[in-house]
Amino acid sequence: MKKHDQDFMKRQNRLTVFEIIKNQAPISRAAIAKQTGMSATTVSRIVGELADQGYILESDQVSVGLGRKSTLLGIADTSVLSVGVELDSHQMNIGIVDIQGNIVCSSKYTRTSDEKPDVTLMRISEAIHDLMEQHGIDKTRALGIGMGLPGIVNNQTGIVVFSVQLGWKNVQLAERLKELTGYEVAVDNELKVKALAEHLKGAAIGSRRTALLGFGNGVGSALILEGEIYRGETNSAGEIGHTTIDPSGMMCECGKAGCLQTYINISSLLSEANKIRPIATIEELFAARQAGEGWAKYLIERALQYIAITVNNVVCMYNPDSVILSGELVDKFPAIYEEVEELCTKEIVWEPLRGSFRIFRSELNERGVMIGSGLLSQMRFFKLD
Amino acid sequence: MKKHDQDFMKRQNRLTVFEIIKNQAPISRAAIAKQTGMSATTVSRIVGELADQGYILESDQVSVGLGRKSTLLGIADTSVLSVGVELDSHQMNIGIVDIQGNIVCSSKYTRTSDEKPDVTLMRISEAIHDLMEQHGIDKTRALGIGMGLPGIVNNQTGIVVFSVQLGWKNVQLAERLKELTGYEVAVDNELKVKALAEHLKGAAIGSRRTALLGFGNGVGSALILEGEIYRGETNSAGEIGHTTIDPSGMMCECGKAGCLQTYINISSLLSEANKIRPIATIEELFAARQAGEGWAKYLIERALQYIAITVNNVVCMYNPDSVILSGELVDKFPAIYEEVEELCTKEIVWEPLRGSFRIFRSELNERGVMIGSGLLSQMRFFKLD
Repeated sequence: MKKHDQDFMKRQNRLTVFEIIKNQAPISRAAIAKQTGMSATTVSRIVGELADQGYILESDQVSVGLGRKSTLLGIADTSVLSVGVELDSHQMNIGIVDIQGNIVCSSKYTRTSDEKPDVTLMRISEAIHDLMEQHGIDKTRALGIGMGLPGIVNNQTGIVVFSVQLGWKNVQLAERLKELTGYEVAVDNELKVKALAEHLKGAAIGSRRTALLGFGNGVGSALILEGEIYRGETNSAGEIGHTTIDPSGMMCECGKAGCLQTYINISSLLSEANKIRPIATIEELFAARQAGEGWAKYLIERALQYIAITVNNVVCMYNPDSVILSGELVDKFPAIYEEVEELCTKEIVWEPLRGSFRIFRSELNERGVMIGSGLLSQMRFFKLD
Repeated sequence: MKKHDQDFMKRQNRLTVFEIIKNQAPISRAAIAKQTGMSATTVSRIVGELADQGYILESDQVSVGLGRKSTLLGIADTSVLSVGVELDSHQMNIGIVDIQGNIVCSSKYTRTSDEKPDVTLMRISEAIHDLMEQHGIDKTRALGIGMGLPGIVNNQTGIVVFSVQLGWKNVQLAERLKELTGYEVAVDNELKVKALAEHLKGAAIGSRRTALLGFGNGVGSALILEGEIYRGETNSAGEIGHTTIDPSGMMCECGKAGCLQTYINISSLLSEANKIRPIATIEELFAARQAGEGWAKYLIERALQYIAITVNNVVCMYNPDSVILSGELVDKFPAIYEEVEELCTKEIVWEPLRGSFRIFRSELNERGVMIGSGLLSQMRFFKLD
């Protein structure tokens, strides 16, 4: 059983010690050993590794009870920084993130959807350099770079396996950006890092099973279980947008018909709307609904119904304690949150599971991917991911 | 974070030690400590507890390397037995299960779907007594009883929260059966224990992420992650049968319309078939298809398409390495396995995930729930669940 192999145990032990120091500091090595059942040797080895990297502080020795004096440990919070990058088809957001998940500073760039990977990476590399220079941040203070983007990402190798939105296939993103910047680079799916951010610093603090749903130019979900991203076999878990709803339904960009996202995502809604009259943006479509145009009302209300169906289907499958609604649709039109919640609780969620979970808005909104990417980079550095 | 609280750590440590002894026996306490990073005290305490219960054997002392002599540990396999009970609307299967998941002996009873809980429990209690007596099994050799049944079960309290098939609501099953038999009773959803059995002893040995699908009088799924049942917040994860497919579709017995299972489950298929001509059993419906009746062909082929859709939707959500098809439909008509597999690989599964998982038939078939229930009872006894 892989679960109990030695590498796994070591990583788990390291994560446990790190979390205990972070959450219970100041704390002694002996207290950690007692709490975890680990040997003093194991605890000291892990603390030593973390201290060598400069991220654990040892306080003055203090007496604990009647025993001899004991050194207390804590995390050197303020010294830890990382770079968080959100990469989307039309824009890039680059931020410096501290260990508490605060954005120290950030910058925003547009990009064209057909920009080649090498150009994008060169621009990101320069943007990071500029951002640090402008804000007087010493390059050596950052542990690494985290990146979140739409699509299937091999989070182990940092290869973008497939991204419809970016039009990329098998791009060695982490390796190339490391060559350009010198930093270690962690790459992941945008919803997975966003869910991590909401779990650690946003709407789902304290939740044990969080499902984050994203509604925008695609539909997807991510699951955080007991503080860890649930990835599945190929880091593709949560691709609810491509669950089949109607095998004789509308075409999806994936080449199949009737995927759930065809009822909801912005490009589908615009494509349907343009059968009636020219509609360039999702704002125009919502304005048409507001103006009482029946076809716009139908399209949007059907989308809201399928958003509620997405909630039901995620809840039936994952049985989470928290569901977070996020993405461009929800961020731009926060009023739909109430409509969806009412649909869920009165009608669409399977009766035995009503009341088993809470629905939240995203708290970090459009900052979520940047923050989550920065935190992912830190976790990778501390070998917690 | 709950994950690192002391109770959780203790349970995890106990599970780790138990698994290592089971899988790597003969092994010394020192080797376990070295492998896990636990202190010698922790390992000795856990081994002591398991040995006191009589389930760990200590071998003669042997020299390991240059050090002093060391006692090797193993599991006392043959002494461990438990009772596994499968309870369904029309039948009950009761078996004695050993630690390897073998059924030592078993018996089968019919029941009527409106039988009251007290009557059913009394009959189960008597059946266990009779079975042990017939086979000369000393009552004290069994650690406890495990039960698997369709519906939502609170696995902590052993209360059947809600079961459409049994017609039960809030039945304190574990407590009452313990009063009748004197045994500790573990109760769980049938697909969860079936998945556990296939993972430990059947088609999914060695899999890290197994999704078991059940197609019969309902449609459901269960997920085994890293050797553990994924339960979700209220032990309801995997209820894919009630994911909504078509909000204007057929009525489901749950009171909503267009649930996935309305296209597949046996009662729906029979109800649709009877609109054409009297069809009493699923065998008759398959015979009508075989005889070339168009409506029967349509109904069954639509069901097969939705079975493949179920595979796709589970794969998109959970991204497992193994998918096991099980349940009455698959057990009775094994030929549909090939049809479903072809639909999945050629057409219905989302292209980026084709090849990311393997599809298996259930290996334990109708014995799965009994075996899994017995194993669950053993895990509960060893405090591994």
